[in-house]
Amino acid sequence: MTLPPTERTTVRLDDRAVYDREAIYEILDEAYYAHVGFVSKGSPVVIPMLHARIEDTLFLHGGPASRIMRTLKDGREICVTVTLLDGLVLARSAFHHSANYRSVVAFGRPTVIADLHQRRAVLDAYTDKLVPGRRPYLREMTDREVRGTVVLSVPLDEASAKVRSGGPVDEPEDMELDIWAGLIPLALTAGDPIDDPLMLPGIPRPDHVDGIGR
Amino acid sequence: MTLPPTERTTVRLDDRAVYDREAIYEILDEAYYAHVGFVSKGSPVVIPMLHARIEDTLFLHGGPASRIMRTLKDGREICVTVTLLDGLVLARSAFHHSANYRSVVAFGRPTVIADLHQRRAVLDAYTDKLVPGRRPYLREMTDREVRGTVVLSVPLDEASAKVRSGGPVDEPEDMELDIWAGLIPLALTAGDPIDDPLMLPGIPRPDHVDGIGR
Repeated sequence: MTLPPTERTTVRLDDRAVYDREAIYEILDEAYYAHVGFVSKGSPVVIPMLHARIEDTLFLHGGPASRIMRTLKDGREICVTVTLLDGLVLARSAFHHSANYRSVVAFGRPTVIADLHQRRAVLDAYTDKLVPGRRPYLREMTDREVRGTVVLSVPLDEASAKVRSGGPVDEPEDMELDIWAGLIPLALTAGDPIDDPLMLPGIPRPDHVDGIGR
Repeated sequence: MTLPPTERTTVRLDDRAVYDREAIYEILDEAYYAHVGFVSKGSPVVIPMLHARIEDTLFLHGGPASRIMRTLKDGREICVTVTLLDGLVLARSAFHHSANYRSVVAFGRPTVIADLHQRRAVLDAYTDKLVPGRRPYLREMTDREVRGTVVLSVPLDEASAKVRSGGPVDEPEDMELDIWAGLIPLALTAGDPIDDPLMLPGIPRPDHVDGIGR
């Protein structure tokens, strides 16, 4: 299904534009965090936040004392942007150096989720996203913890993605130059897990921990 | 040297706050891209952009036809945010799962750089940042290319960083649970370079390409 582009979600370079919901959701889901923009006292503010998605809704969360939660719970408009850097594009000319990336820009107004069951479902989705398979292994979230977390929902009605992929695009007259050109792939990679030194001795590392890395 | 925190650059959680210029610059320089926020027709907009820094000034650039350059060249206020995700923090409770990160938030008003020499110096800094050591190897930037690029400068006068590091912080009563807790380090990692298939045959891969990866 395709999201109808609005003036502000129309991507100028048409060959990089993506309006397909599934493709947009794939980028949102792969990204661990988003950059959330809002207007505060007339000024733009951009803050990194962990996000989650369930169906056609994006979620943000935080402590009730956090400045961003106190600001956003009034339902003011936000812009949520997610970027995955896929590689460096090395051209023959400095001018045509570029980056491969996938990004999503979504606009909407957040709503505070009052219902505790719904809030718990969203927080569960966060845990499932961060470390798939880990939640059943954990000490369950208490009602007090759920009550003590602000969860905001933003409908994914106005969003688009922009994707640059492929190799360098140089000037035709530069193609014969004796210069190496190509791509350097980049990916967010997980290193070896580090045990919490405060952990009880003898606790085995569960499979879901070794499976991390995308 | 320390940047004096303003109301909007004061980090609420004091133990995560960084106001030291050198520490802020290190984060800005390590990050390949920034998220740039501005207000357009009353709405917040956040766009990923490559950035560069020279001394106490941050730079953005783009084509003159790009929407963001046409918008920002009027000198409206922007918020530039950079985030490096360093790891996932796996606690004993879902509630205390977190992420280790280093982020910078900077506020300022961009100025268009009219001087072509200065503009070239900034574009050179971009190339040097993206792939250290590559610029002397490349076809030099033409005056036409420099003239055809909009470069914006933003003084780094109002900025702060926020850093979360270290292991999980669980509730005292959860510390005896038989649950693996720890850290999953994450890093943006370079894969093997991919030759441009349009390259002339027999061009060796230069050392600066094999050296990429931070």
